[in-house]
Amino acid sequence: MRFLIKFSYDGSNYAGYQIQPGKNTVQECLEKALTEVNNHKKTIIHSSGRTDKGVHAKAQYAHADIDVDITPNKLKRALNSNLPDDIHVIETMIVDDKFHARYNTKSKKYEYYINLGEYNPIEKNYVFQYNHELNVSAMKDAIKVFLGEHDFRAFVTDNKEKENCVRTITKATIDEIDEKLKITFEGTGFLRYQVRNMVGILIKVGENKISTEDVEKILLSKDRTKSGKTAPANGLYLCDVYYDKLNIMK
Amino acid sequence: MRFLIKFSYDGSNYAGYQIQPGKNTVQECLEKALTEVNNHKKTIIHSSGRTDKGVHAKAQYAHADIDVDITPNKLKRALNSNLPDDIHVIETMIVDDKFHARYNTKSKKYEYYINLGEYNPIEKNYVFQYNHELNVSAMKDAIKVFLGEHDFRAFVTDNKEKENCVRTITKATIDEIDEKLKITFEGTGFLRYQVRNMVGILIKVGENKISTEDVEKILLSKDRTKSGKTAPANGLYLCDVYYDKLNIMK
Repeated sequence: MRFLIKFSYDGSNYAGYQIQPGKNTVQECLEKALTEVNNHKKTIIHSSGRTDKGVHAKAQYAHADIDVDITPNKLKRALNSNLPDDIHVIETMIVDDKFHARYNTKSKKYEYYINLGEYNPIEKNYVFQYNHELNVSAMKDAIKVFLGEHDFRAFVTDNKEKENCVRTITKATIDEIDEKLKITFEGTGFLRYQVRNMVGILIKVGENKISTEDVEKILLSKDRTKSGKTAPANGLYLCDVYYDKLNIMK
Repeated sequence: MRFLIKFSYDGSNYAGYQIQPGKNTVQECLEKALTEVNNHKKTIIHSSGRTDKGVHAKAQYAHADIDVDITPNKLKRALNSNLPDDIHVIETMIVDDKFHARYNTKSKKYEYYINLGEYNPIEKNYVFQYNHELNVSAMKDAIKVFLGEHDFRAFVTDNKEKENCVRTITKATIDEIDEKLKITFEGTGFLRYQVRNMVGILIKVGENKISTEDVEKILLSKDRTKSGKTAPANGLYLCDVYYDKLNIMK
């Protein structure tokens, strides 16, 4: 039976989502827990995509095939009892055998948090601490540049020349919550470091170093060297994944 | 010059506030940073009181005498650059030489957080995760028992027989914020484990195992064996300390 697994994690102590030899990864922890539950049969998991070192997930999804007869609720409990306390299975669903957690992705939502207030030690791994003022209204204007279908090559780190960098962003907003900024992006998919590079350029706008027009020019240039610093990983959260053809059988 | 230092910390990785030989404590980190700033002259800090292992502080206070000529702002920056990232100096103030961060305490505020919703890995060290329902309205009724002047002997762990356990609680409230409970206590002072023991008994009320009348009886019994489990440290925050005779000179 194919299960779709919805889970959250604290990325602070992981080398990222994806398995890497000799490193602590979220995927490896999940596969170990699944293998345990699946009568010690080596079990592979297929996620909606990777997240980088230090990035968190409020809701990430992956599918895996389980041979043992188990209900979604029991699988959730069995996995959680085999997972470390910084990874948590929220829900599992039985889906049809053709469903693929990566290929059936319709869109994804990311949030990025910047703290403009006094540094808070209990949030050290969970927000980007920014100790200067930011021109938030300029940032709110500039973020609209990213809306719609664009070639995001200028905002991708380590892209291969032939990689297709065209993506569609359907939501791009900045909310002020107390002394924090919450930057939300929703779109058909995001390239490596794209969100953190877009946040990096928005911070430059907030510092009044560049204008909305400059952001447009950088986007059109398709030149990574034109864009700014990559914002730190600790402020970034994968928040949700939306699926096409998601036929939940149980 | 005597400085009053307002600071916050993430208690997760500390054996508590107070110095203990061979253990990692908040006080030791602060004294090391102060000694560094105070031209390597061994500098002692006097806090408003201790917090236990795993307990956090949103605002804790302590005073120290510094020989070097330094402004409050510069002292803040110098201390923060010598402190680990889970302790943060929020503010420093020059006070008169007779001020004492412990003896001049008028009242203190504590908050305790319980999460009744889905477990969230990024909050694992910062809220008490409770996976069952609680009768919150019964808890809101029972918490009023603690208001006023009482001998809190039944809620103190490891008290000495002759210790005076009479304290006055001026505020005791429960707020529901999304799927969390925030329990607030304000009072003239709190004994060891008192807040966590009061929360423990409130949880028993929430489980419908005991009534408000039972809480009254336990309080009047002055018998620790009558009260319940100590709630875990990770949900507890020292939130503020209020002072008498606080004469800020700069």
